[in-house]
Amino acid sequence: MNLTQQQTLTIQHQYPVVFTRELFSRQNPILAEVLRQAGQQRHRILVAIDSGVLAADPSLPERAQAYAQFHANLMELLMPPLVVRGGEICKDDPREVTTLHMLVAKAHLCRQSFVMVIGGGAVLDAIGYATATAHRGLRLLRVPTTTLAQADAGIGVKNAINALGRKNFLGTFAPPFAVFNDFEFLATLPPRELRAGLAEAVKVALVKDAATFAALYEHRLQLGAFQPDAIEVAIHRCAELHLNHIRDGGDPFERRSARPLDFGHWLAHKLEEISHGELRHGEAVAIGIAVDAHYSARVGSISTQDLARIVETLRDVGFTLWHECLRCVDIGVAMQEFQEHIGGPLTLTVLDGIGGQRDVTEIDLGLMRECIATLGSPAHDREERRGSINLSTIGD
Amino acid sequence: MNLTQQQTLTIQHQYPVVFTRELFSRQNPILAEVLRQAGQQRHRILVAIDSGVLAADPSLPERAQAYAQFHANLMELLMPPLVVRGGEICKDDPREVTTLHMLVAKAHLCRQSFVMVIGGGAVLDAIGYATATAHRGLRLLRVPTTTLAQADAGIGVKNAINALGRKNFLGTFAPPFAVFNDFEFLATLPPRELRAGLAEAVKVALVKDAATFAALYEHRLQLGAFQPDAIEVAIHRCAELHLNHIRDGGDPFERRSARPLDFGHWLAHKLEEISHGELRHGEAVAIGIAVDAHYSARVGSISTQDLARIVETLRDVGFTLWHECLRCVDIGVAMQEFQEHIGGPLTLTVLDGIGGQRDVTEIDLGLMRECIATLGSPAHDREERRGSINLSTIGD
Repeated sequence: MNLTQQQTLTIQHQYPVVFTRELFSRQNPILAEVLRQAGQQRHRILVAIDSGVLAADPSLPERAQAYAQFHANLMELLMPPLVVRGGEICKDDPREVTTLHMLVAKAHLCRQSFVMVIGGGAVLDAIGYATATAHRGLRLLRVPTTTLAQADAGIGVKNAINALGRKNFLGTFAPPFAVFNDFEFLATLPPRELRAGLAEAVKVALVKDAATFAALYEHRLQLGAFQPDAIEVAIHRCAELHLNHIRDGGDPFERRSARPLDFGHWLAHKLEEISHGELRHGEAVAIGIAVDAHYSARVGSISTQDLARIVETLRDVGFTLWHECLRCVDIGVAMQEFQEHIGGPLTLTVLDGIGGQRDVTEIDLGLMRECIATLGSPAHDREERRGSINLSTIGD
Repeated sequence: MNLTQQQTLTIQHQYPVVFTRELFSRQNPILAEVLRQAGQQRHRILVAIDSGVLAADPSLPERAQAYAQFHANLMELLMPPLVVRGGEICKDDPREVTTLHMLVAKAHLCRQSFVMVIGGGAVLDAIGYATATAHRGLRLLRVPTTTLAQADAGIGVKNAINALGRKNFLGTFAPPFAVFNDFEFLATLPPRELRAGLAEAVKVALVKDAATFAALYEHRLQLGAFQPDAIEVAIHRCAELHLNHIRDGGDPFERRSARPLDFGHWLAHKLEEISHGELRHGEAVAIGIAVDAHYSARVGSISTQDLARIVETLRDVGFTLWHECLRCVDIGVAMQEFQEHIGGPLTLTVLDGIGGQRDVTEIDLGLMRECIATLGSPAHDREERRGSINLSTIGD
């Protein structure tokens, strides 16, 4: 009675992630080289730029335009660029998403045209979503300008905007055409922004690679002092771990429930929400990492020495591992909402030694509450400074 | 100076396309079987239903609910279903897209939850888009209810809504979790709807398989009389050709410019637009096929006998191969707009014998104009009825 034809589609996505300097310098051929791979014609490129980046570097559009004119046989920039309000606001209010759609229609761009987005993670996310949905997806060139975006948000396959009060409620999986991590942008960042991305770097090291975490631990004071060399090495290594995970993790489009890279994120998302953006994503992630590392230690999954090194790294990099919002987090709701976004049964990623992780589905909410309370106790700070945290006294 | 890491992701998508009857009959195990493949838990399913389908079959939600209760260990339907205005209106005005997003949030559905959409191509498209973007994509069960959707729109990997005055301007490529083609739905269709899908069947046969076209030609009068057997065989065969093309065509997500399945569609999209929906998609496609078949004959790519058989098939199936809107189509603009959607240089798909096609990039707009004028001439009708079309006199 029933006749079934099984449809099987294999799709290969390929994109370069380039680490570079002065992307728009005439001496730098990489952007032109990448475009040439899309064919020898004159590629049309719509540029969207983060308002924060533009404010810090007002001549950027001019330099981009000069580069395009130097390579006029290969590229044409549609000017003026679309200026996108930097930070979470462009994900909360889809004004620029709509504007990008209008520009695509007005400029008669097609699926083989390009959108180049220059900015922090939020701007990449919003413009990425707009680009992925117009004509079912134009080609996206990402130029991440923050540590966070260069190490994490800007190199992967996701985009999103916030909707219905939920972070990242609307989005797609859409690999970019290419990513250009230009380290020069980092020089213009305020300290908070510079620091923020290092939380994701610590996270990916913790769940993926003990040697990378050891290096971050060793250089934590240089990182805290924002020494460019230390930061660039950290970004590069962590971007690599991130890319390898997406490639080899077996689930790049996240159809299953295991999500090691979301370590610490269930709490981070909620903190961002209830602090109304006062906590940046990276700052919230740092707290999330600290809490879930405490939990990992309490369930015996990492040693107290490991926990101390994790907390020490985060603190020395400059993160404040407490926020008043922690007092009003409903842990059960926060976990539930995060899981809804991921899908599948309630799961917590805990560390399994440094550089490893495992998923637990039985979660002790009382214990989690204690771990959060620990961060707020004056004792925690003192003990951590002594380099050892006595778990048995924590949470009393 | 530049350091590049090449990221390569291989994604396999797999989904069953089931041909069945009485999907919600207790005797029919297929829906339960497909859900079981997603795991033994109780799957949560949000149902969206085409207002036209509901009007023709008001007890459908009840039967679906009874089926779900019979398989209560495997599935839970969230009732009442979301009723979606049938036809292009739900793509023009994204009201139901927004409502679906709100229902997903309110019911706390996650990426592993299901949306089941029951309806014609437009409803599948709009709800498919909403489903693909919530949480970056819930699992979609498509139940196409029209000949067009069963043979074509409902079995592929695309979704879309209209925006900024352009058909399908916003959308994504998102393979469904499963497709259920239930032939029983066809019995409730008005003749116009039944006929509409046969245009896509003729199209896919023309570009892909001479034997299938020969069978359609042979059974054209039965198809025109809506004999269920003939229609079911046609749907099944054409769905198969369509699926094979997506799988083997080498470009399931349409990143390149060649698009054989868009034969006749550049004109069809424009006719739908300027007739303000008076022409259904299938009706417009029939005219588009006729025009591009004439063009194919004029450039020597098919014989006049082949052209006559194509026109005869479309007419005997019941299509009217003329519409007053043809008088005001700006051919250049229509082609340009369609190409913008596809991407790449202006390309026309012409037939290369029956069952084959080739892309031409030099398009004679004057000749195309003549081909369109031909359809409106009384001589065309008479000559076609005699089974031969004298190309040399056409267009004079």
